Amino acid sequence: MYNQDLHDLFIDELADMYNAENQIIENLPTLIKLVSLPDLKETLTKHLRETENQVKRIERIFSVLNLEISENTCEAMAGLIKEAQEIVQNKSRSPTLDAAIISAAQKVEHYEIASYGTLRSFAKHLGFDSEVVDLLQESLDEEGSADKKLTKIAEGSLFSSGVNKEAAEVTSHSAKKNRH
Amino acid sequence: MYNQDLHDLFIDELADMYNAENQIIENLPTLIKLVSLPDLKETLTKHLRETENQVKRIERIFSVLNLEISENTCEAMAGLIKEAQEIVQNKSRSPTLDAAIISAAQKVEHYEIASYGTLRSFAKHLGFDSEVVDLLQESLDEEGSADKKLTKIAEGSLFSSGVNKEAAEVTSHSAKKNRH
Repeated sequence: MYNQDLHDLFIDELADMYNAENQIIENLPTLIKLVSLPDLKETLTKHLRETENQVKRIERIFSVLNLEISENTCEAMAGLIKEAQEIVQNKSRSPTLDAAIISAAQKVEHYEIASYGTLRSFAKHLGFDSEVVDLLQESLDEEGSADKKLTKIAEGSLFSSGVNKEAAEVTSHSAKKNRH
Repeated sequence: MYNQDLHDLFIDELADMYNAENQIIENLPTLIKLVSLPDLKETLTKHLRETENQVKRIERIFSVLNLEISENTCEAMAGLIKEAQEIVQNKSRSPTLDAAIISAAQKVEHYEIASYGTLRSFAKHLGFDSEVVDLLQESLDEEGSADKKLTKIAEGSLFSSGVNKEAAEVTSHSAKKNRH
């Protein structure tokens, strides 16, 4: 009785995540187009490919469990994407827009870290085939790495060189203007 | 020019977080009422108190920066809460409901971890008073601890004793019923 309840909860959350990943695939390209920093563009483009693989992993899990693929509208991801769209709307390319995109992307990564962590924990407890646990672990690891890489870009390329470089240029430009 | 953009982004995200925390304060009590496991009920009740302090910290940050308190509707938190409500609706108290509540709560914690991490990073880069950075760090640390505590409950009390205990009781009860 109990295991059936947890099994149903697992499938519900998996169907939710399947939809969440598909929402990311649909919306991430628009954000990528707005990025200035090459390192950030490359990281998000790589993560879009990873997301496509994560969708395939979820499809594989449904198959291993002998279930039809199911999809629930993921309200949380819809909210995260709506927020990202609001943050970037009417903004032109700039280091600050890059910072806003990193912020939105990290919120999405953290949602996925929590979700895959829960799914992996449920799968272990339900005694599912180790392939299921491994597939969830792979996606969890990718999300963790993507989040760390974004922090590195925010604290490194963006804030220490990109943004400061622009700030320096603005200062230097003003100084030059004032001199002439 | 650039710093003003980042400053505006910081204030936008702070106003968003102010609303997110208030949404949690409004909705967490309903989830707490549905919890069975005493350890989970205690952890979420403690976190509700922490959330009230986090709201006060955000109010203090607005004050340190000589700004009026502002609040933006946080679409992501609205989505996270809608999802939590959907997961628990029409369910009666059970270890599986506790597991669902932990899952929803961890998604919320992770949203906050990403948000406070970003705010702290922006505050440092903007050269804000160290009090602002420290206030954000305190909330970030609380979120991290709450998330770890929830994982501990899920993997310890809930899955190893609570859930298994109930599973054992169900088995024992069925065995007894079958014997009579």
